[in-house]
Amino acid sequence: MKIGRKHYRTVWFATPVVFLIDQTLLPFEFKIVRAKSYRDTCAAIKNMTVRGAGAIGAAAGFAMAQAFLGAPQKNFWKFAQKARAEICDTRPTAQNLFFAVERVFAAAGCAAGESGAGKLNAGFAAAWAAVAEAQKIADEDAENCKKIGEIGSKLIVQGMQIETHCNAGWLAFVDYGSALSPIYLAHRGGKKIFVYVDETRPRGQGARLTAWELKNERVPHAIIPDNAGASLMAQGKIDMVIVGADRIAANGDTANKIGTLEKAIAAHEYGIPFYVAAPTSTFDLKCKSGKDIPIEERSPDEVLYQSGVTRKGKLEEILVCSPGSSALNPAFDVTPAKYITGIITEKGLLKPTTENIRKLFL
Amino acid sequence: MKIGRKHYRTVWFATPVVFLIDQTLLPFEFKIVRAKSYRDTCAAIKNMTVRGAGAIGAAAGFAMAQAFLGAPQKNFWKFAQKARAEICDTRPTAQNLFFAVERVFAAAGCAAGESGAGKLNAGFAAAWAAVAEAQKIADEDAENCKKIGEIGSKLIVQGMQIETHCNAGWLAFVDYGSALSPIYLAHRGGKKIFVYVDETRPRGQGARLTAWELKNERVPHAIIPDNAGASLMAQGKIDMVIVGADRIAANGDTANKIGTLEKAIAAHEYGIPFYVAAPTSTFDLKCKSGKDIPIEERSPDEVLYQSGVTRKGKLEEILVCSPGSSALNPAFDVTPAKYITGIITEKGLLKPTTENIRKLFL
Repeated sequence: MKIGRKHYRTVWFATPVVFLIDQTLLPFEFKIVRAKSYRDTCAAIKNMTVRGAGAIGAAAGFAMAQAFLGAPQKNFWKFAQKARAEICDTRPTAQNLFFAVERVFAAAGCAAGESGAGKLNAGFAAAWAAVAEAQKIADEDAENCKKIGEIGSKLIVQGMQIETHCNAGWLAFVDYGSALSPIYLAHRGGKKIFVYVDETRPRGQGARLTAWELKNERVPHAIIPDNAGASLMAQGKIDMVIVGADRIAANGDTANKIGTLEKAIAAHEYGIPFYVAAPTSTFDLKCKSGKDIPIEERSPDEVLYQSGVTRKGKLEEILVCSPGSSALNPAFDVTPAKYITGIITEKGLLKPTTENIRKLFL
Repeated sequence: MKIGRKHYRTVWFATPVVFLIDQTLLPFEFKIVRAKSYRDTCAAIKNMTVRGAGAIGAAAGFAMAQAFLGAPQKNFWKFAQKARAEICDTRPTAQNLFFAVERVFAAAGCAAGESGAGKLNAGFAAAWAAVAEAQKIADEDAENCKKIGEIGSKLIVQGMQIETHCNAGWLAFVDYGSALSPIYLAHRGGKKIFVYVDETRPRGQGARLTAWELKNERVPHAIIPDNAGASLMAQGKIDMVIVGADRIAANGDTANKIGTLEKAIAAHEYGIPFYVAAPTSTFDLKCKSGKDIPIEERSPDEVLYQSGVTRKGKLEEILVCSPGSSALNPAFDVTPAKYITGIITEKGLLKPTTENIRKLFL
């Protein structure tokens, strides 16, 4: 997507270097990190230079390919296996990460086996296949998000005012994003739209990342306190809500950033369409319903403290609550399928029922 | 209410000095401001040392009494009239302020007329009556809030988990508060309760003032992001919601801090009782419904910037949003009466219907 006038992906590979937009500094500083080895890329995943399911997956795939490129002729596979374990260790709960690493490793193994040549040639074949597969994973992520955008943008008509929660933009994927992809494609298609961006306390991903993305893509928008959604709906100022998803159960119940449920209930009350946009990799059919999705409880400090820049431009963290009180910080909530008008995937738009979701994977 | 082991009111009068808890420094510093003249008290109202309808009313009444005490024998009434205008000018939209000033002025005038004595004695009588009336206004405010607490606390049973929004505690009144008064009285009565405090972005009155009050009264509580309410309700963790009110229309529609509507809709969805607690002075029968209540739009900077203390203990303001994006900041929303289980006033608990509200003022 565009930053200034230039097109960027969140993470990209120019062999043998992985480039990543440093998301720890956004929105206050735009910096590209160069990861020259798989170890550098591991560090970038670990310290959250890169975040978001799709972007982490792509970075992990690239890291695995970097490891094959850097593997010594002697102990080639031992080196690669050790690297695989290291990469998988960076963010132990990231589903997409394992998926990408395994795909790249398998492609390399397969190519080496097929090469039927000596050790040297087999290593070349493996590394070459690894790079190609890693690139394919990143491209697929971007392509899926673009498809979500094409399908979702058909729901958006001229003049619409759209509310979104958290950041399900291109920063969370390789490009386009999920919830924001339909917005970008509608905007590029010349539709005049306006986006209300929930600030998304406590971590402020809406106010910081979504607002930053929209500003760079020149989509008209305003940040709103999370408290303001229902009031704007009551005044007829919201025509549609689109959010992303962290995990979708087999019956369509959707886990997403805390506060999504409140918006869904309010939208339901006012008869406003409420859409979830997510690639099919977000579905977890092992979870029969939302009850099976575990909700992460995070540190109270994320509520009690806020970070930002002072008027002098210095990054600073301040206590914003009464000293001596504690806080609860559930990171996600589960929105029952009954409040969701439709789920937008790269395979199409569907009404969230167990039957429709089952068909998606036939 | 208690701070440490000592009892305080938000504002009190020890002739001729008005004492006020400095609410601009809370929750990070506890300081008492001494206003020695009506001009000092005016300044305290203007710079928000004191805030909240009830507390502002009491402070304004005291200021008027201070003016009578300080009025020179010559030009006694001219001085008092000029002071009255100055006091009324401090916060031009505060209904309670005019009400208190007029009551004190009228009491003084009445006493002077009745004294039937010379100028000197008439001045004494007026000042004496002004002080007594101002004290009465403050006492009535505290008494009404205490009654709200007594009536409301009957709704609270052992073990309840209660959610509240913004600050409708004793800091907004002279003592006890409105929404928090039932909580204080239930707690003092030995009922084990737990309070979920909405942080109440953008200004954080929940996280800062309500949490500070509850900590000092030793009521078990946790601050939650405004986003977490519906999720806690869905998990059965909220038994009741109590909020205050800025203005209540003749049909029971209630204007209160932004975000109140979201909580009311969510509570309605989950069948959780939703109460508004407010003295009868909060009703504005000139507003037939919520549509007649104007909603104040405040500066975007309240959303974009946050203030608090650094780890080194310094008060600092930081930008917490993406630079270059703007924000919308509606300060209040209107909750339709249909979502309100009951309104707790000093005259009793009522279901919010036009008929019931009309009877309240017969």
